[in-house]
Amino acid sequence: MEITERVRAGDVRAMARLMSLIENNSPEATSALKGLYPFTGQAFIVGITGPPGCGKSTLTDQLTQEFRREGRTVGIIAVDPTSPFTGGAILADRIRMQQHSLDAGVFIRSMATRGHLGGLAKATNDIVNVLDAAGKEVILIETVGVGQDEVEVVKTAQTSIVVSVPGLGDDIQAIKAGILEIADIFVVNKADREGADKTATELQVMMTLGPGRTDWSPPIVKTVATQGKGIAELAKGILAHQAHLDRAGFREKRQRERSRALFLELLQEQATRRLLEGAMANGTLEQTIERIAHREVDPYSAVEELLEKAGL
Amino acid sequence: MEITERVRAGDVRAMARLMSLIENNSPEATSALKGLYPFTGQAFIVGITGPPGCGKSTLTDQLTQEFRREGRTVGIIAVDPTSPFTGGAILADRIRMQQHSLDAGVFIRSMATRGHLGGLAKATNDIVNVLDAAGKEVILIETVGVGQDEVEVVKTAQTSIVVSVPGLGDDIQAIKAGILEIADIFVVNKADREGADKTATELQVMMTLGPGRTDWSPPIVKTVATQGKGIAELAKGILAHQAHLDRAGFREKRQRERSRALFLELLQEQATRRLLEGAMANGTLEQTIERIAHREVDPYSAVEELLEKAGL
Repeated sequence: MEITERVRAGDVRAMARLMSLIENNSPEATSALKGLYPFTGQAFIVGITGPPGCGKSTLTDQLTQEFRREGRTVGIIAVDPTSPFTGGAILADRIRMQQHSLDAGVFIRSMATRGHLGGLAKATNDIVNVLDAAGKEVILIETVGVGQDEVEVVKTAQTSIVVSVPGLGDDIQAIKAGILEIADIFVVNKADREGADKTATELQVMMTLGPGRTDWSPPIVKTVATQGKGIAELAKGILAHQAHLDRAGFREKRQRERSRALFLELLQEQATRRLLEGAMANGTLEQTIERIAHREVDPYSAVEELLEKAGL
Repeated sequence: MEITERVRAGDVRAMARLMSLIENNSPEATSALKGLYPFTGQAFIVGITGPPGCGKSTLTDQLTQEFRREGRTVGIIAVDPTSPFTGGAILADRIRMQQHSLDAGVFIRSMATRGHLGGLAKATNDIVNVLDAAGKEVILIETVGVGQDEVEVVKTAQTSIVVSVPGLGDDIQAIKAGILEIADIFVVNKADREGADKTATELQVMMTLGPGRTDWSPPIVKTVATQGKGIAELAKGILAHQAHLDRAGFREKRQRERSRALFLELLQEQATRRLLEGAMANGTLEQTIERIAHREVDPYSAVEELLEKAGL
């Protein structure tokens, strides 16, 4: 049986294999993704982001349990800042898989943030499409960090959850401002800690100061993920936001945004790859880099030259 | 006078103007950067990274004072995770500029992490080149976060400093593992806090477990940046690493790596821009995105089609 058919049937081993092909930038992956694409677009895609130590993994696990209780199947993509060499992502996978190992309704995949030729957002998008085509109803994307890359990853989601914790220090103010625009739901986790109300109030104030959203007012949900507190409310918030997206045709809009992002990521990757293939084969790439390093040519002119040779 | 000549003379207004042109992806910026490139390659480029709240800004300010005392000129690039709309980066600039406002030997530039068409690493690289050509002897690049993007930014540095603080929670372990390979110097800041020795020991252990570096053994420096403690030792560590780079020809190697990264970033940006210009002008880009969103075509095939039309 074709890998696409096996993925569509929810075959766990076929899914895992295709995801590895995606991460290795295999041409086989592209051909399978082409076949699966018509069957995507069904899942709720939820992004969960926040600073290190805010308890995202625990929140994700608790949300998964909540959705499973409601009978929904769940796919989890955990974007880990571990390097390939430590194998951290794989280890984390195994530990977390044990919890859900007897549940065929949950599929977990960890991704290292490094070593993705075509960009992390592209690989994440591809893996979302695999989970989507395999029939997972809710897809949770969990990312650590506050960088541009993480913002791009979260943009692939339909509902974005931004997690804070009380008392995280000075830089947190800046982070909140940076991701204010992308948040559909705010979570104050570890809400049994001192300062939880203050953090919630700060978020409220920042929302008032921001550009304002006329379509949706992001709720602020307090949780204690380790005790399962506030999880049901958070799940309800997600479903409310998804219903909101449907109501006014916003899902269509987000779908277009996601299509645009995926298209541009792919274009960037493929164009660069094809341009470099020639230059690498005949050794001019290394020569050019050597000349740039020695200030014999500037990189701006070198790139223009390569593009003109390619007729661009 | 040409902007390149004014930048080379260290004219603060010309530098600021060129940096704005770079951030706006102006063609004028490229032509100025071409002219400046032969005069780059002189500065010590130091990257400082670590999680939010670890005190990077204070460390950077203290290091600046230390280098100024030694008579070296300093350029600072602070990569802020604030969005353009909040103006956070600009505000931070102004506040920090006041400290050094009477010192012509210091130039500070904040950059938002969002909205860089050609990638944050490319913009950072370009701004490093401006500071370098303007004669700044030490360039400090300060980034928040642990994502791929931040790693790319830090890669443009010759000496990379990774900052931790005692007791930052569970995720920190993973982060340390992820950036272990890029660190030339570790700093445990806020070392007057409980757990500082434990954090230092953990770092030591992780280094032993890692792939190992035969060329350089990254020192672990304890600092209390707010009190200026450990700063002189850190500055010495930076100079020792720079001397090490010179000794065995490693500076040449890093220079080649930086040239390669800059070339590839530029190639990616320019190739995508040129490919999209045509598609945007005749409206096919929007049509294609619409068709992808409606599952009439898959994005993988759409990109292939565009590239084939361009003769790639």
